Amino acid sequence: MLDKVSVKEYMAQVGRAAREASRVLAASSTGVKNEALLAMARELDASREHLARENEKDLAAGRDNGLDAALLDRLALKPQTIDGMIEGLRQVAALPDPCGEITDMSYRPSGIQVGKMRVPLGVVGIIYESRPNVTIDAASLCLKSGNAAILRGGSEAIHSNRAIAECIERGLTAAGLPVSAVQVIQTTDRAAVGELITMPEWVDVIVPRGGKGLIERISREASVPVIKHLDGICHVYIDAKADLDKAFAIALNAKTHRYGVCNAMETLLVDEAVAAQILPRLADAYRAEGVELRGCDKTRCLIEASEATEEDWQTEYLAPVLSIRIVASLDEAIEHIARYSSQHTESIVTEDFTRGRRFLTEVDSASVMINASTRFADGFEYGLGAEIGISTDKIHARGPVGLEGLTSQKWIVLGDGHIRH
Amino acid sequence: MLDKVSVKEYMAQVGRAAREASRVLAASSTGVKNEALLAMARELDASREHLARENEKDLAAGRDNGLDAALLDRLALKPQTIDGMIEGLRQVAALPDPCGEITDMSYRPSGIQVGKMRVPLGVVGIIYESRPNVTIDAASLCLKSGNAAILRGGSEAIHSNRAIAECIERGLTAAGLPVSAVQVIQTTDRAAVGELITMPEWVDVIVPRGGKGLIERISREASVPVIKHLDGICHVYIDAKADLDKAFAIALNAKTHRYGVCNAMETLLVDEAVAAQILPRLADAYRAEGVELRGCDKTRCLIEASEATEEDWQTEYLAPVLSIRIVASLDEAIEHIARYSSQHTESIVTEDFTRGRRFLTEVDSASVMINASTRFADGFEYGLGAEIGISTDKIHARGPVGLEGLTSQKWIVLGDGHIRH
Repeated sequence: MLDKVSVKEYMAQVGRAAREASRVLAASSTGVKNEALLAMARELDASREHLARENEKDLAAGRDNGLDAALLDRLALKPQTIDGMIEGLRQVAALPDPCGEITDMSYRPSGIQVGKMRVPLGVVGIIYESRPNVTIDAASLCLKSGNAAILRGGSEAIHSNRAIAECIERGLTAAGLPVSAVQVIQTTDRAAVGELITMPEWVDVIVPRGGKGLIERISREASVPVIKHLDGICHVYIDAKADLDKAFAIALNAKTHRYGVCNAMETLLVDEAVAAQILPRLADAYRAEGVELRGCDKTRCLIEASEATEEDWQTEYLAPVLSIRIVASLDEAIEHIARYSSQHTESIVTEDFTRGRRFLTEVDSASVMINASTRFADGFEYGLGAEIGISTDKIHARGPVGLEGLTSQKWIVLGDGHIRH
Repeated sequence: MLDKVSVKEYMAQVGRAAREASRVLAASSTGVKNEALLAMARELDASREHLARENEKDLAAGRDNGLDAALLDRLALKPQTIDGMIEGLRQVAALPDPCGEITDMSYRPSGIQVGKMRVPLGVVGIIYESRPNVTIDAASLCLKSGNAAILRGGSEAIHSNRAIAECIERGLTAAGLPVSAVQVIQTTDRAAVGELITMPEWVDVIVPRGGKGLIERISREASVPVIKHLDGICHVYIDAKADLDKAFAIALNAKTHRYGVCNAMETLLVDEAVAAQILPRLADAYRAEGVELRGCDKTRCLIEASEATEEDWQTEYLAPVLSIRIVASLDEAIEHIARYSSQHTESIVTEDFTRGRRFLTEVDSASVMINASTRFADGFEYGLGAEIGISTDKIHARGPVGLEGLTSQKWIVLGDGHIRH
């Protein structure tokens, strides 16, 4: 374990190397970046035994430290996990390169041509918890978007992450790229995170992936911009003019398709005009799926449900639990969403053009939908090809963040000796 | 003067009111927003005497406090200043409304339609120094982009700003918008700034406008994203393959067109292959304009100049001073820029296609130019119609920031009862 001063020195050294590598990456061709990604895939495939051995060290330590079964499962690098990592690298290699794209080029009255060129952000710091496969996931997205990456995984996965890092290094070298293009932090000292998020001279953006506690702490302490996602308190509103079959399918899918995901519905809002028709039918279906229902007073007059408290409206259950509220109007639904939503994803079910249009304009969430399940809020479903996370912020990247979210645009100006008069 | 606790309460109240107003603005039509802008223009025109009286209070206090002539000049609301404010409001009303623009709508294999809608950021906090006309400038851009604004001007302009705020309020009221859509902070207590930049629940972004000290302090202390611009250390590089007439015109214009602006050239880089041809001619022209020259050793063999120190390469003169360095190659020029540039604006003068293309790709600045004066880096010259500032950050907005920089994009999804399988 390094002491405080040397953690600071070590991290500054990592940062400086990343900054230098970022300049090489920004000038690297798509072909070279893809070559590195495919070489990493080959290296992982050739290192399966070594990866298993190193992973076993983490698993043994985890068992000794009393990690629960779910955490141990996330920590395990099974053969299928490695297959997935290899497949992921190939998919990212196949994606279009966002860098260098020139758009909006036009002549100005002065005679200059002005447009924008898409460029990497520079250096991306990624902080994540136990899953070691995130190491490959994050490295591949940063590399493809032309950014140097500094990766800080959980200390419980350090042996696995180091073994994966060796494969990454060999892949970079095979393509002629500097090994510092992707650096896995070699110390488990917690002070390293504190340094990483406060080095604006070396790091351009931080992407934390993990529990809410981790993300909140990082956002609070970082002096570098953070692309983050805190909660997913998503709503479906069944409007008075909803097609009730669509409403039934969407409300069921949004809650029960998967429970532990950020785009699952947590609160169902139902217009009082259709509540008596739709709620009993939905309640039966939820009960058949084992979903616990909590409702407002009006809801509890129609179906069996425990009482929803103020806290329920503010809770991301990530579990088979649903809170239900009957509202008097679209206005009341929008009001509820403005107050309790985490601005992740909300959907209205309606056949009414004007109400749908109002919902789309007035609901201020990263994804706003008409007649579709909130479960579609996802980088793959949106066609991004890959996803580094889902942002609930409004600045820079909003909603699912793919390669483009890891880039910026600079202005380019072409002239022929033009000067300003 | 309010005490600490009540400044905190006052600012929270301002923030809460701004948040509420922002929802009204987000749902307001372009017509209503334009009506408010034009009503403000009429109110200013009708209040010229009152504005002059209130401004005189600030000027008198400024004279008593020993403000220098330049500051007093910036503080003065002359009839032409008011004309400019009125004209500015009319121009912003005439700009296209960025909000609601839907782009990239396409069908996905699942059958849903996915696209993006441009939306306001929400609440924008603007902190600025002595010029009271910034109050109108900032208010109009925020309003047009659908954002509520909280404006904090310099304490030396408090009477002027309050008088302008009254015109803004009457304009908002005339258009049926809430007066809290634009709030001018009524206390001169410095603690108000500290509150404003640490209320992420009420404020979405901070735009500081003023000296470097103010901006650095705000960036350091803010817990809200900051759109900022620190330095403008801009470079022109005259390549070995430059057309020397274009090089002469650009290098002269970039330095001497105006001195105290962020897009003025501060360092000239010249390829050694053409230095002997171009530098003496340029030196004569600079001398005729009264520009002080500081050069590297090689430069000083060719022209008369004092010695440029390490500090010169890091300095934004904002004055008739220029540092000159002779470089051996394009690589050395790019290297110098990577090390010393503030990533604002750099320009290469060259007729060589491949070198121009490399410069465009490899120089990581907000504006990168070929054969054009750095003085073109400006929201009006780029066609933005208005400018709230120039960002030297890479996250969110880069370079000149117009109305679009005060907006974000949310995802919209349209379906027909689509659920995820």
